[in-house]
Amino acid sequence: MNVLLVYAHPEPKSLNGSLKDFTVKRLENAGHTVQVSDLYAMNWKTTLDANDSTHRVSEERFHPSLDSKHAFEHGLQSDDIAREQDKLRWADAVILQFPLWWFSMPAILKGWVERVYAYGFGYGVGEHSEARWGDRYGEGMLAGKRAMLVVTTGGWESHYSARGINGPIDDVLFPIQHGVLYYPGFDVLPPFVVYRTGRIDQARYAEISDALGKRLDALATTTPIPYRPQNAGAYEIPALTLRPEFAPDQSGFVAHIE
Amino acid sequence: MNVLLVYAHPEPKSLNGSLKDFTVKRLENAGHTVQVSDLYAMNWKTTLDANDSTHRVSEERFHPSLDSKHAFEHGLQSDDIAREQDKLRWADAVILQFPLWWFSMPAILKGWVERVYAYGFGYGVGEHSEARWGDRYGEGMLAGKRAMLVVTTGGWESHYSARGINGPIDDVLFPIQHGVLYYPGFDVLPPFVVYRTGRIDQARYAEISDALGKRLDALATTTPIPYRPQNAGAYEIPALTLRPEFAPDQSGFVAHIE
Repeated sequence: MNVLLVYAHPEPKSLNGSLKDFTVKRLENAGHTVQVSDLYAMNWKTTLDANDSTHRVSEERFHPSLDSKHAFEHGLQSDDIAREQDKLRWADAVILQFPLWWFSMPAILKGWVERVYAYGFGYGVGEHSEARWGDRYGEGMLAGKRAMLVVTTGGWESHYSARGINGPIDDVLFPIQHGVLYYPGFDVLPPFVVYRTGRIDQARYAEISDALGKRLDALATTTPIPYRPQNAGAYEIPALTLRPEFAPDQSGFVAHIE
Repeated sequence: MNVLLVYAHPEPKSLNGSLKDFTVKRLENAGHTVQVSDLYAMNWKTTLDANDSTHRVSEERFHPSLDSKHAFEHGLQSDDIAREQDKLRWADAVILQFPLWWFSMPAILKGWVERVYAYGFGYGVGEHSEARWGDRYGEGMLAGKRAMLVVTTGGWESHYSARGINGPIDDVLFPIQHGVLYYPGFDVLPPFVVYRTGRIDQARYAEISDALGKRLDALATTTPIPYRPQNAGAYEIPALTLRPEFAPDQSGFVAHIE
């Protein structure tokens, strides 16, 4: 497979840096082709703004989504954005690797999502009608590709358990896994999460890399999280609420998993 | 009161720009003193990196939290970070205003959180013992201050309802409200959310600004979301799971609200 690793940590000599190098090697040894977008090393422009287009719709007023649409449709996007979109088109699987900072991805990676997911590419795709509400949540430009998070956190596993103070890790990651990955079409694999990163000795690193290696070996075969597709009957359109017969007693994030 | 408005939208002539101006005027007319951190206008440095300190612990290896701790303790933080911390110390109430992009805050605001919330200021505060796990979740440097989100989104209110496809808005915002605001001690007020921003005519703008105005008038008196404090008996330490007698049948984000 072609695998794109989008990686966001500022220090190569870190746990994240080691796991990134391990990942590339493991995948290449298994015969995959790997590209890495090392956002810090690339000095990735984090902030979405009017300079993301080489020619704006209007000089008077910058409109984030309309300017993005215009730039995407007319080949007027800045090169760094277009290059990342090409990598996504090329990839069969995408891994986002990052430390969990303030219960989400680092700003530099958030800015990658905001800028690379142009209108017409990451959103604003497909028709809106009585039967469909755009190609999203299971459909879209990235449909047919797999995605997986590799996340490190200083907190303990129990802090992210069902009744842990930070909230369950699957709920903390839902806005990313469902909202950023499933939305434009990815099949989302269960995340690989490393807890308590402040205490990692050689033995624990060996355990972690062994477990990560197994996940990477199964990248093509792991069953994705069964999020419900938007346009296949489970949701009222345009309200986009679950029809009463689906998960009748549930609400919240978990209701959107079959 | 002293009110800090941290604002993240790239275009002054936008709905967000109008609501920001409205907010400042309304608060000043009510006798409050307002400072605005207009992150785009300030050209805020979004990415947390080694340049955030004027003198690193080690030139060999950048360690995000240890370098932050060292810089904070020794007055070696870059000026832009120290200035924002001073504004936070000065403020009685803080409003974060932003468009919801990909189910979270814009990268520029996430980078404000990551850089301004230094070790010793936003986290890493207080002792860890058998009875306490740091001053956080209800305690911390920002305790006694109020915070509120003002958020705009293109999606419909039903899309963010209990069974809406994006997830309930309170759950989507939990990593910010609980994880970014309650964590360092803020009392968090219910959010003010504007839905379906693609369709706002004059009449609807009047409704929205009227409703926002009422929320601003009540900034000092609105009852905060009753998140459970970490060190007051509801959680096992150090597992930080809810004790069985608290919300015995619940799990997930909602269990952390009294």
